[in-house]
Amino acid sequence: MIFSKELILRQLFERETSTYTYIIYDKNSLEAVIIDPVRETIERDCKLIDDLELKLRWSLETHLHADHITSASQLSDKYNCKIAISSFAEVSKEGVTLLQDRQIVEINPSFKIEVIATPGHTNCSISFLINDMLFSGDTLLIRGCGRTDFQQGSNEQLFESVRTKLFSLPDMTRVFPGHNYKGELSSSILEEKKYNPRLKEDNSFDQFCSIMNNLNLSHPKQIEIALPANKVCGAQL
Amino acid sequence: MIFSKELILRQLFERETSTYTYIIYDKNSLEAVIIDPVRETIERDCKLIDDLELKLRWSLETHLHADHITSASQLSDKYNCKIAISSFAEVSKEGVTLLQDRQIVEINPSFKIEVIATPGHTNCSISFLINDMLFSGDTLLIRGCGRTDFQQGSNEQLFESVRTKLFSLPDMTRVFPGHNYKGELSSSILEEKKYNPRLKEDNSFDQFCSIMNNLNLSHPKQIEIALPANKVCGAQL
Repeated sequence: MIFSKELILRQLFERETSTYTYIIYDKNSLEAVIIDPVRETIERDCKLIDDLELKLRWSLETHLHADHITSASQLSDKYNCKIAISSFAEVSKEGVTLLQDRQIVEINPSFKIEVIATPGHTNCSISFLINDMLFSGDTLLIRGCGRTDFQQGSNEQLFESVRTKLFSLPDMTRVFPGHNYKGELSSSILEEKKYNPRLKEDNSFDQFCSIMNNLNLSHPKQIEIALPANKVCGAQL
Repeated sequence: MIFSKELILRQLFERETSTYTYIIYDKNSLEAVIIDPVRETIERDCKLIDDLELKLRWSLETHLHADHITSASQLSDKYNCKIAISSFAEVSKEGVTLLQDRQIVEINPSFKIEVIATPGHTNCSISFLINDMLFSGDTLLIRGCGRTDFQQGSNEQLFESVRTKLFSLPDMTRVFPGHNYKGELSSSILEEKKYNPRLKEDNSFDQFCSIMNNLNLSHPKQIEIALPANKVCGAQL
């Protein structure tokens, strides 16, 4: 739980896919958004929302996930919240808000979310900036980044997204990633500029490509299930 | 990472035993303490300490752990930091600082740690209060508490420790526990007063005992290995 002026952050972890879900709420109005909710943890997340008497306004996706299914539709059914994802995401669910680069989602005058298009891991990857907190999805991970070998992934775009767009944020911006596999919860722009082995400022684009092209990752085993489900925001078909 | 005036918190997770380790540092002086470091994650933790160029002053234990082995001795060897644990802990390592209830560990004038004796899970359980951050070990968990059926555990003491000592802290005090098994990272005193199913203010001591006496937990499988190792602060024998 982090206090940033009037906003409180709750970071939550889904163990099977090492996914972070985030709930950010205004401690005065109790208006809330959730970022990257996971179907497996919906009971836990709803209990927290209910206990805290939050008014869930938005369920936000950083991209179309290949490794887990979102609970966005279920949350929308339960709380009547809106669902949003990048305008580049091929979603086939009605009523979903499609977000553009630099769009501002305003919850109230002191609770605004800036959308930053950060393609590269997927073509529909976006990050969310709320005050000094960056929710970077799988674009920028702690000492790493998302893979670029499926879903219109692109080394060029990921490098550009991180080095130009994210690394131009203030050094002390806190980085909250979509995943971590080592028990690290957060980082900062300064740290990633200095220590991210793939994307640190000392690395050239060629060095980055050399790393990314030799990851030898296996095919994500859930992609055939997760992607179609996430294109309807996790709605039960 | 949490900013509390000049202090930055890094919460870290050890997956096998679902243990949280905490590094708190002064962003100006880079003086740091670590709470409940785990042997299995020492490489990760040292890399972070080294990357951030922290000056590790103390390795602090909330109690003698039964489920994992501390890396305190290794950290002390590497960084020349001091090791501290409750004066009730039966430690047999020389040079360990034994902490008393309400003792203040001062790193510098703006970085002070208050020790709160909170016996109950074990007789040597203590909590650490740093500004508005409470590191509650296994005394107060998120919507739970540590078991009381070994290591001189006591329902009476645990109830007293939480209800009298911890619940008298300001409502917005952030609670950072020693473990969580559901992917929850932090809570607050207010939330635990209202929603902790064992210790919430609505519960009587008899209700608490009824819950604790019917947990039917299995014997901790690592206790015969972990306890002797932790009594020498994880020193390699």
